[in-house]
Amino acid sequence: MTRGTRRRRGREGAAAAPPKRKTDYRHLKNPFPQMAVFSEDRIYAIHEAALDVLERLGVKVLLPEARAQFKAGGATVDETEEMVFLGREMIEAALATAPKSIPVKAGHPDRDLTLELGNLIFQPGAGAPHATDLVRGRRPGTIQDYRELTILTQVFDVLHMVPPLIEPQDAPTHLRHYTTMEAQLTLTDKLPFVFSRGSPQVAQSFEMLRDFRGLSDADFHAAPHCYTIINTNSPRTLDIPMAQGLIDFARAGQVSIVTPFTLMGAMAPITVAGAMTLSHAEALAAITLTQLVKPGAPVCYGTFTSNVDMKSGAPAFGTPEHVKASLAAGQLARLVGLPWRCASGSAANINDAQAANETQFGIWGCLLAGATVVIHSAGWLEGGLTVSYEKLITDLEVLQMVAEMCAETQAGEAEIGLDALAEVQPGGHFFAAGQTMERYQTEFYEPLVADWSNFGTWTERGEIDANHRATGIWQEKLARFTPPPMDPDRVAALNEYIRIQSAAGGAPPES
Amino acid sequence: MTRGTRRRRGREGAAAAPPKRKTDYRHLKNPFPQMAVFSEDRIYAIHEAALDVLERLGVKVLLPEARAQFKAGGATVDETEEMVFLGREMIEAALATAPKSIPVKAGHPDRDLTLELGNLIFQPGAGAPHATDLVRGRRPGTIQDYRELTILTQVFDVLHMVPPLIEPQDAPTHLRHYTTMEAQLTLTDKLPFVFSRGSPQVAQSFEMLRDFRGLSDADFHAAPHCYTIINTNSPRTLDIPMAQGLIDFARAGQVSIVTPFTLMGAMAPITVAGAMTLSHAEALAAITLTQLVKPGAPVCYGTFTSNVDMKSGAPAFGTPEHVKASLAAGQLARLVGLPWRCASGSAANINDAQAANETQFGIWGCLLAGATVVIHSAGWLEGGLTVSYEKLITDLEVLQMVAEMCAETQAGEAEIGLDALAEVQPGGHFFAAGQTMERYQTEFYEPLVADWSNFGTWTERGEIDANHRATGIWQEKLARFTPPPMDPDRVAALNEYIRIQSAAGGAPPES
Repeated sequence: MTRGTRRRRGREGAAAAPPKRKTDYRHLKNPFPQMAVFSEDRIYAIHEAALDVLERLGVKVLLPEARAQFKAGGATVDETEEMVFLGREMIEAALATAPKSIPVKAGHPDRDLTLELGNLIFQPGAGAPHATDLVRGRRPGTIQDYRELTILTQVFDVLHMVPPLIEPQDAPTHLRHYTTMEAQLTLTDKLPFVFSRGSPQVAQSFEMLRDFRGLSDADFHAAPHCYTIINTNSPRTLDIPMAQGLIDFARAGQVSIVTPFTLMGAMAPITVAGAMTLSHAEALAAITLTQLVKPGAPVCYGTFTSNVDMKSGAPAFGTPEHVKASLAAGQLARLVGLPWRCASGSAANINDAQAANETQFGIWGCLLAGATVVIHSAGWLEGGLTVSYEKLITDLEVLQMVAEMCAETQAGEAEIGLDALAEVQPGGHFFAAGQTMERYQTEFYEPLVADWSNFGTWTERGEIDANHRATGIWQEKLARFTPPPMDPDRVAALNEYIRIQSAAGGAPPES
Repeated sequence: MTRGTRRRRGREGAAAAPPKRKTDYRHLKNPFPQMAVFSEDRIYAIHEAALDVLERLGVKVLLPEARAQFKAGGATVDETEEMVFLGREMIEAALATAPKSIPVKAGHPDRDLTLELGNLIFQPGAGAPHATDLVRGRRPGTIQDYRELTILTQVFDVLHMVPPLIEPQDAPTHLRHYTTMEAQLTLTDKLPFVFSRGSPQVAQSFEMLRDFRGLSDADFHAAPHCYTIINTNSPRTLDIPMAQGLIDFARAGQVSIVTPFTLMGAMAPITVAGAMTLSHAEALAAITLTQLVKPGAPVCYGTFTSNVDMKSGAPAFGTPEHVKASLAAGQLARLVGLPWRCASGSAANINDAQAANETQFGIWGCLLAGATVVIHSAGWLEGGLTVSYEKLITDLEVLQMVAEMCAETQAGEAEIGLDALAEVQPGGHFFAAGQTMERYQTEFYEPLVADWSNFGTWTERGEIDANHRATGIWQEKLARFTPPPMDPDRVAALNEYIRIQSAAGGAPPES
């Protein structure tokens, strides 16, 4: 059949009835086999080495309250050096009480998630000081960028939690948590993120969230409604806001995700095994603190281990070493049985083939590692210094394709379709087969940004590359955005709370 | 530590001793776990349905000699309709004699390969009428393009076989096989490809190869020294040159890779299960022909099954459906136990994020499907209508990263490195640790085209994107190319053979 015939048939079909394809990207189970980079024996050796590190070398804990918690739990503490030495039995006890499954409550029941091994949860790129897009260029992140990226996180079902996308640098630091909470609560119904920047900001963030959800204190504490990320200061340091965050979140029954950020050859040993030993030790120390504060407190294991370029010291992401570290972390997470967070990423400076390849390579590492939560899965450039609007869109294509792989594929009699096979003679085609007519609107994934037109058509249409198509997509998503339904009284109360607290001086971050 | 310090340290280290990292990308074992898309029960149902198709619906075989072979082997043949109906016992007999492991001889022993389940062999994009690069633009493929792409295939160890890269359209079709054989033999020592375009061209190609390798007829027949690709004409047709190729290659003991090219919704049923049933049936019919001609003839199973855009009829690649079909093909290949070929690809028109993402997604499908040979793994654009020089380079980065994953990663005491962990205090760094100093030149993969410099440096250096960096790389590789050592007498003899045969009228392709 000629291309012309194919086009005609296609156009008629498309005109007659709009596509009715239904997808559910909201609740994904990881369908990929889990891959080991080390033998079970070696993973156990890494676990043992991490326990050795905690027992013999210790961890520097800058927050006195945290040292007191560790000491009360049985650790040896050197107050002068602020060093804490944790025995194996403390770690074992903590791993015994840390929950293996953590149901979290979002703004709508259909956005609720369960953090547990086997589930698959995506977050876009996060924590960047800059934002960039082809229209406005690269700039320090603004409140507008934060809000727009929050909206884009909301509108794509394959993104499941709101991370700290970019730093809204035009919001003063003592008021910034109002900016970010207000945006997360009023623009999304997905699980919000709270920065651990000291107890005052955390307490106010909890208060805003509790009241906006219409909860009592007891209800709020009874289930996680938000989460924070705890980055240790590798090597072997837990700083004040991070330790305080672990304590505050554990007390409030909210989720801490512990993520040592260990770059092989820089803040961590140059080997995958060494870096993972350090990362594992630091994660276990932080997890133990949460369980000392409140046994059963929701906490996730995590890692973000990649390598640097040994010629320049520049961090690299989506590399083979990054993927191997992710695989090792997955083995260690399964050893301790906790839900865990892993990361993709890219060190590219623009959304080119390098950027796409690094992020996707890193994502496959997370998938084969069995990560529960995959952060920096879309939009992250420059090793996390920038979130790109276009890259957010082109990476979302990959996440949606991954989500398609999570759905069961049928191979019943109707799908094998001996009738269809008999219907089409040699030399014929299946465009008009009964099986095709029944399914042509629903059988295939419809791409978000991919353009499958032929070279002639693509040229006639202006040779628009993926980044420029992505620009049209994010612009349209922002223009058409309607916030999820919410109680206007609560929105008003939130704004009033923010007005009063801002007038009272806000809450500066602590460090 | 500051970025400045890191840079200084890096530069000194680099100046003191050049990197000594050694890699072996020549012989890869697939380290990835194999993924099932269907239950074993459903895979068996697809296999049974394919046997039904062959028995009841039959295959149209256009070549009388092939029908005679099938008939002599026990098939029911309708000579008027050119239809062949194959019983199950014929298929079973063929699968019993087809070799599970095929050692092939290249131009140098270190380039020899073994085609068997578990090995991992990459080929660049192939079969394209056009070539493109940023310097010379998109054009019909030329002899120069064919030679340059052959050189680029030679210089990267992670590419293991030479495929039919592009059509050198400035070579007359009756002389084209001289052009391609001469380039493959004199510019590479990797396994060459011979097009099945009728017995005269095939016989002359075998002759050139035999003599260039200095083999007797018996030696040439005793082991495979080249391969061909057999694309069935889906649905259910085996055309004249393809059937002739199967017969000629089987007789000569050379490798046929059978690859039905079945686009779901177009030449194949719209479902993954239906398309794979058709693909499997066609592959089994072709494999059976080789074993009827010569039991034990080297033949690979294969598939290239993706979907079309049902709105336009345009083929798509690197889609979820493509990956699902690859996974099903892997299950079927393991069921029959044969080495097999799978494919990646992209329908993008330039090497942008879509192109990178589609090709990498398709490659992961092949890896998780356990493919022995992965074709179109680098450089393929426009659904195979063009090979891009830049995309060849940026995709090679992914293949090299995959190859890195094939190497064993150590986690012995030296790698876990408790000493290194003890050496660096909290707040310190590992740049100068003993373990780091021992390993910093060899521990990490060094990227081919990725640029990990920070935004400031990258901007100062001219904001060069991956495609323009790739341009510099392929240009340098071509400029610096030295052909592998070879006997000048054999080169002279080859040229003389080609001169004489050309003067005698060459050998037109048959169809």
